[in-house]
Parts: sequence; C-alpha cells; structure tokens
Amino acid sequence: MNMVELIAKRRENQTHTFEELEFIANGAAQDSIPDYQLAAWLMAAFLNPLNLQETAWLTKAMAESGERIDLSGLPHPWLDKHSTGGVGDKTTLVFLPIMAACGLTVVKMSGRGLGITGGTVDKLGAIPGFRLDLSPEEMKAQANKIGLAITGQTPRLAPADGRLYALRDVTATVPSIPLIVSSILSKKVAGGADHVVFDVKCGAGAFMKTPADAQVLASQLEQVGCELGLKVRARITDMDEPLGRCAGNALEVKEAMAVLRGEERGRFRDLCFGLAASALELTGIPNAEQKVMDVLDSGAALEKTRQWMEAQGGDPSVCDSDDWGHAPVTETVEWSGEPGWVSDLDAEAVGLAVIDLGGGRKKKSDEINPAVGVECIAKVGDQVETGQTIFRIHAANQSDAEQAKQRLATAITSQSNQPEPKPIFFN
Amino acid sequence: MNMVELIAKRRENQTHTFEELEFIANGAAQDSIPDYQLAAWLMAAFLNPLNLQETAWLTKAMAESGERIDLSGLPHPWLDKHSTGGVGDKTTLVFLPIMAACGLTVVKMSGRGLGITGGTVDKLGAIPGFRLDLSPEEMKAQANKIGLAITGQTPRLAPADGRLYALRDVTATVPSIPLIVSSILSKKVAGGADHVVFDVKCGAGAFMKTPADAQVLASQLEQVGCELGLKVRARITDMDEPLGRCAGNALEVKEAMAVLRGEERGRFRDLCFGLAASALELTGIPNAEQKVMDVLDSGAALEKTRQWMEAQGGDPSVCDSDDWGHAPVTETVEWSGEPGWVSDLDAEAVGLAVIDLGGGRKKKSDEINPAVGVECIAKVGDQVETGQTIFRIHAANQSDAEQAKQRLATAITSQSNQPEPKPIFFN
Repeated sequence: MNMVELIAKRRENQTHTFEELEFIANGAAQDSIPDYQLAAWLMAAFLNPLNLQETAWLTKAMAESGERIDLSGLPHPWLDKHSTGGVGDKTTLVFLPIMAACGLTVVKMSGRGLGITGGTVDKLGAIPGFRLDLSPEEMKAQANKIGLAITGQTPRLAPADGRLYALRDVTATVPSIPLIVSSILSKKVAGGADHVVFDVKCGAGAFMKTPADAQVLASQLEQVGCELGLKVRARITDMDEPLGRCAGNALEVKEAMAVLRGEERGRFRDLCFGLAASALELTGIPNAEQKVMDVLDSGAALEKTRQWMEAQGGDPSVCDSDDWGHAPVTETVEWSGEPGWVSDLDAEAVGLAVIDLGGGRKKKSDEINPAVGVECIAKVGDQVETGQTIFRIHAANQSDAEQAKQRLATAITSQSNQPEPKPIFFN
Repeated sequence: MNMVELIAKRRENQTHTFEELEFIANGAAQDSIPDYQLAAWLMAAFLNPLNLQETAWLTKAMAESGERIDLSGLPHPWLDKHSTGGVGDKTTLVFLPIMAACGLTVVKMSGRGLGITGGTVDKLGAIPGFRLDLSPEEMKAQANKIGLAITGQTPRLAPADGRLYALRDVTATVPSIPLIVSSILSKKVAGGADHVVFDVKCGAGAFMKTPADAQVLASQLEQVGCELGLKVRARITDMDEPLGRCAGNALEVKEAMAVLRGEERGRFRDLCFGLAASALELTGIPNAEQKVMDVLDSGAALEKTRQWMEAQGGDPSVCDSDDWGHAPVTETVEWSGEPGWVSDLDAEAVGLAVIDLGGGRKKKSDEINPAVGVECIAKVGDQVETGQTIFRIHAANQSDAEQAKQRLATAITSQSNQPEPKPIFFN
C-alpha cells in the first residue's frame, strides 16, 4: 500500500477500507510512515471526517497495533470508565471501589493531567507510596484478588494512538469527533474491558462547551463501541462549575474519601452515584441504584478502597484521616460584592488558579506539587454575604497564593435571586 | 507567532495575513517549522484554498525567503519563460535565442524532468560540455554579454518553495492551483525578471487535462503575477500528442536546432513562434510577429545559439550538425492497421516509452541516458498506410528497444477520414 495514495483518497473524501486504516495504524505504531504523511492524513481526516464504520475500523486497528490485556479468567463483567476531563474531577477514586464492591472487575489505565484538566494518575500520585507503574500482569493479578487495579498509560497498549495523538496535538487536528472517539476507544479495547461507561463533560470547564456538541461525541462513542462489540453507555454531565468542592491533587483525594465515608453529599456524590448505577445497569445487574446505595452505606466501598491502597502500596490511612499532604500556606478569598446568590463559578478560572499554584501542568514536562489547590467554599446556588469566605487557597508560598487570589477574585458571579438548581446529568 | 494557531486558522478557512504567510515561508526556508506542521498546513490549504491575495502574499514571501537575482544594469526588458511541462517540450531551446536575438535579456532557471515530463536541464545536459551550474553572478555576466543565460535550479533562490514542494510531493498536496501558482511564480520573482510568458500545457500528456482546468491556472498566474507587479501572459497550448517529432534529450536538441536553421516547420515551430511573439507584445515591442520572423529567417537566432553554446561551454557544432550523441540501437515500429489518418497519438505512452528506454526519470535519483528516445514519424492528421514506419526508437540495447516497441504498438489511433486540424494555441 502507498501512503501518498491513501492521503489522496482521504483528501478526496473517499471511503477507506479496514486494510487501509490498519496500514495507517500499524505504520504509525511501527514508525514506518513518517510524521509528515501522518500529519497530512490527519488534516485530511479532520476536514473530511471518517464515517462511523471507518471510525470503528480505525479504532480496532489502533487497539490491535500493540499489546492487549486479556482479562479472561477474571470475574465477569469487566468494566472500564472514562471521563473526557474537567476541573475537580476525582470521580474515578470513588467509582472504582464502588464497582469492585459490587462484584465487577475494573482494570483501568489512566492519564496525567494537562492544562486545566486534572488527571487521575496525578491525584492518586498524591497518596504517599501509591504505585502507578503496574505491568499488565500485575494489574491482572491485583484485579483477580480485589476486583480493581489502575495504572498510568503504557506505550505498550495502542501505540498507534500514542503517536497519532502526539501529532494531533501539534498539528491543530485535536477537535475532530471521529479522531477523538477512535483515540479514546482504542485504549479501552486494548485494555480488555467489554463494558465501558463514559462521562462526557460539558460546559465552560470542559472540552465540549455545549450539550449539543457533547451529544455528538456521546452518541458516536456509543455507536462505534457497539460496532466493536462493546457495551457502552455515555452520560453527559455538567462542567460549568468545578466538580465538588476541591481542585488540586491531595485535596481531591481527601474529598473522594469523604464521599466514601458518607460525610460528603452534593453534586459530586450524585455524579459518582449516577455513573455507578449506569454501569451496573449496563452490565445487566438488577436493582442498580439500591446496590450502589448499599455498598456506600455499609462501608463496603470504603473497605474496598483500603484494600486497594494496600494492594498498590498506598498509605491506607488516607481513607480515614485528612491529616496528610498539607500545603504550607493557606489563604482565603472573601466575597466583596453585594449579598446574593452564586449564579456562576468559573471552572476555567479555578483550573488556571491550580496551574498557577503548581498543581497542574502548562506543558507535558511540568512537575506538579500534589499539596496545592483550591477549595470552593461557595458553589452555584449558594447564598453569599459580603465578607464571607468563598475560596480557600492551599499554596507552596505566599506569592503563589497572592497570584491565585487575584485570579479567583473574579471567578464568582452573583445574582439577587436564588437560581434554579441545575441537574448534574444532561442525559 | 504560533504555527499550531496558523494551521487551525487555515483549517477553519480563515484568511491569513502577509505576516503569517511570511512566517510560514521563512519557517520552511530556515527549517524552524517541522515537516509535520508544514504538511498539516499544506493539506488544510489544499482543502481550504488560498485566495488570490493570499496566493500573491505567499509567492512574495517565498521569493524573499532566500537570495534574489538583481538584473539591474542589464539591458531591459528582463524576460522569463515557464512551461508547465509535457512530452517533447524543447521550446526553451528555440525561444531563448529568439528572445536574445530580439534584444531582450533572458536569465532563466530550469528544472530537471520527472515522470513523462521532460526537463530543459536534461535536454541541454545532452550537449557535450554544456554547463548547468552557473552561479547567479555568472548568469548575470553572461546575460550582459550575449543576452541570455540558463542554469539548473539552485536551492539559494526561493528555498521555501524547495522545502514545500518536496513535502507536497509526498503528502498528496501537489494538485492545488494556488500552491502551484505560488511555487512557479516565487522562483520567477526571485530570478529577477519583470516580464514572464507561461506555456500552460493542456491535454492527455499534461498535468492539466482539459482547457477549463488550464484556463484556471493560466488566469491565476496572470492575476497573481499582476498583484506582484509583474507583466505576465499565460498561453494555453495543446499537449494531447507529443510536441514536435522527437522525445528524448539529444533528439530534442537536434529538432530544436533544425527549427533554428529553418529546416523544420509544423506545430512545434508554430508554438515557439507564437510564444516568442507573445513575449515581445508583452514587453511592448511593436511588430512582434515580423521581428520574430526576421531573427529566424536571417539566421540571427541561430547565431545567438552558437554564442550561447560557446558561453556555457557547449559544443557549438550541435547547431549545424546532427552527427553526435547517437544511441547504439535503432528500431522502427510499423503501422499494422488499415490505411487511414492518425486521429490520436498518445503523448503519455510516448513519454513512458522514453522512461522505459532510460531517457526519463521514474524517481528523482534516477540517472538518464541522453542518447535514447522516440521519433514520432506519423503525427495527428497524417495519413498512414499499412506497413509504414510510424515510430523510430533510439535505444541503449535491443531489449529496451523491444519493450518500447510494445508500449508504442498501441499509441496511435486511426480513423478513415482526415481529421480537422487542431490549433496549437487555445487562447
């Protein structure tokens, strides 16, 4: 096969065969197609988008471009979960132990954060001792024992996606739904799960800004997943304001543990609960909501988290105590406006403040400080009085704290009447 | 400026500024933009074509990306000529001495051939001793003395075009009119001419297959040239059958000399004549046709050719004798069909036969044999009898000759009545 001809075919919006997409995926994985040809093809595929069948074929080809995890022998069903990313999204830390406590097997690869989007790997990395370099064999052994395992991305799985994603990042070809879908799903297929729940974030702090855009992505994830023989459910959830109270790695772990201990209510818990119920429904388990309620209320999910920490080398005391990983400086931001109700809390501003504090990455190579972050004391719908604390900043030093304070000073908008409550799920 | 943002801008079909196109051209010339970003931009520019103003800006930026030849001090007007390429196109060899004999200054850079399209550099390279590595300084000195100079492409002029063209070749982004126009014109601008005549070839043996396509290219060459302050005339000419009798480097030189000696008439001479007259008209010289006739009939153009050969180290005896550069094997192809008239002579088949014989390149690194080629004895409109010689093959060995013979056996189509004569110029 000749890559120039395949680029010309895409350029003319002609349909690719599976063999052609396999040639491209293997050429990307094995470095036998140069960057410039992949880049030209990606731009042609951006402007003449792949159809559903082509997207499924590309996904399959990318999933098969490297190693695959074989979960056979582990208790069924095998579940995976993916979020398109947002500010304060620590859902995986609550969702995984709930699923394992309900008897499902969850083997998950997770990414690091970039920009305002946090990464589960960074949050777990804030836990003293927690290992994120499990091999596929170690993952399988651990999941067999306690029902769940998580690790950082490995280049051994779906290497074609690794190469294409890196190129998309520097060639302005990221925001293409078929390319996004194939990138996400190829890693899920290679990871061995047969059921996948997606959390498609939507709003000012997310990649998809409107429910309509999010709906297109959700629908394609479900349809392409179906083509590939997966059971997929894609839920669309609100990301106009940060998820939960905290943004910043150690702070988010503490918030997740509070939910698992039953101490924390609100929209973040609602999201974990709803996604967990969707996952159980997807696998055909009856009384999904009751089951999730049971493992939370009984402490079974929290106990599963302790087992998880022990299995992956993390300090299990983080499940029961918040007395760890503090930042040296805390500062508060007070409400300087008229009394009223919070109508908007800018997720992007909070995300950028966390980056300012050193808790997120501007570029991939940045080191992060797990202790820093922002607590959102006032959330959308809350009443605020003049002079009341609206944010608590956790910083490495006073100067960082002042910078974050400036950024957060305008992050809240108020109105004089109480806003209508906004649902966390859009579908 | 950020290249990812410029790619995204093109992707969204937003208009570039001159500064943006200059950033891209300089980044290409200076290697500061990587191949994959240029490739993505080229595909975006292929699918969302540059407008006329953008094409002119890109041309200017590419022309200014390296050295420029300054012809000031040389007799005015300064003329250049460009053909989009075809089979048997030796026009430059006749056109240049006519122009110099008429008193114009012609300083020209010429390319090597690739595929069925021959290159003037290869044809001149067939002449024993002819130098094609003149520096800009040598070109200028020679043109000052005898009115004309020619050399191979140099990477010192319009280096941005060199890099972008090489990338277009391997990323399926060649056939874009604005990119073609900027590539061609940038080298003309850098070469210092202020008048340019284009020969836009059209037909089965050319890049542009239909007069409508050729018209688009011709019109954009004229309009973008005008934007850049050049006087440009683009003529559209027939390339359904090979131009003239011969295809193959030494054979074409001999045919060009025969025209200059006044021994050869027909469509090839008509083309040289018409382009030369257009060039004189473009520069405002009165009685253009008569002037061209005069320098041909008086032998002034032939004498200029002898001076040219001497100035560039070529053997001047090629102007007067065909007894040089023979291939060891000649073979003929006879007409095996019914008597009739030639209705079609397949330029592509003749071009491919020349490649088979070793007289053209399949890929850029191929060496060529200047002695080999094909004489077309029967041309469109000629009457043919069964058993009559229709091609004479000049080959390096018998086996190559047999291969070419096979290819040429089906290159002629006949009909039972005499076809209407077809004009050589379409505009």
